[in-house]
Amino acid sequence: MTQVVWHITMSLDGFITGPDDSMEWAFKYPGPNRLADEVMESTGAILAGRRWYDVASARYSGRQGIYGGAWEGPVFVLTHRPPEAPTDPGITFLTGGLAEAVATAGQAAGGKNLEIFGAGVAAQCLDAGLIDEIVVHLAPVLLGDGVRLYGVAGERRQVELERTDLAESGEGGLTSMRFRVTRG
Amino acid sequence: MTQVVWHITMSLDGFITGPDDSMEWAFKYPGPNRLADEVMESTGAILAGRRWYDVASARYSGRQGIYGGAWEGPVFVLTHRPPEAPTDPGITFLTGGLAEAVATAGQAAGGKNLEIFGAGVAAQCLDAGLIDEIVVHLAPVLLGDGVRLYGVAGERRQVELERTDLAESGEGGLTSMRFRVTRG
Repeated sequence: MTQVVWHITMSLDGFITGPDDSMEWAFKYPGPNRLADEVMESTGAILAGRRWYDVASARYSGRQGIYGGAWEGPVFVLTHRPPEAPTDPGITFLTGGLAEAVATAGQAAGGKNLEIFGAGVAAQCLDAGLIDEIVVHLAPVLLGDGVRLYGVAGERRQVELERTDLAESGEGGLTSMRFRVTRG
Repeated sequence: MTQVVWHITMSLDGFITGPDDSMEWAFKYPGPNRLADEVMESTGAILAGRRWYDVASARYSGRQGIYGGAWEGPVFVLTHRPPEAPTDPGITFLTGGLAEAVATAGQAAGGKNLEIFGAGVAAQCLDAGLIDEIVVHLAPVLLGDGVRLYGVAGERRQVELERTDLAESGEGGLTSMRFRVTRG
């Protein structure tokens, strides 16, 4: 059965990007990372938001940069303002509602999992009860600024989780955790 | 040599208290916790801020509530406004500067470590280069609101860490990490 998996790298102080949407801090911890590999191999489709698209296409090779090019499959971006001249045929823009987007992308996953990128779409999915699992790679750094994992304080509600897996990658590097959403 | 160790429990979304300074969410994950025990056994003194004092004394038995009463030693609270009628003889209020407070509390640790509680004093200590290690127990919950681990976005700067230990406590529960501050 298709599971909806939010897959994210985060600083110890809870940022998923640094200042100015920078991601270089997240790329400097050497692998291999068993949990990241497991998520990639079980992913049939990816759903992201417009902010992910803007940053990824401007700086990180867009669709080709996902998992360093090691993953193939359909990528969907949910946005009310699709680009006028999309340049990447591997990306489909969805302009409808959230539940519809998750259903469309989930069907495209062909029995594998649907992976959610970024913070905005993921937080909306959590609020709507649409996320089954969260896989977080916690980087050993305090960033002090950037985009928060789970939005602005007071905007969101409490979500209970259960840690179902734990792995470390690299000497002193990432701490990788898999959680199941149990209530929220 | 006395190490200055920031010891904290945090939600996955980076809060060290829930809304209204609540801490009940942090107490419900069963032990034992090897890293928490190691920190407690190596701690000679504790330094906290006024917010910790107010919350701990109002709700969690103050000095007696620390480690459920299992730890004995001097506790210092750094504040510009000490209480007029302190009721807990186990707590010493310091009203001077930050470095002086860390030196005073560090000497009182008698060769063991100085442990920092709470977020405000710890963030100031990090900014001043006074923290050697951070031990974080990451709880499997998204709180959505509360006091941040490392302050308001944009207030702080980047601090590089190295993870030196990793432990899990309880089935599906806390993920405990020890970090050394390497640059910041």
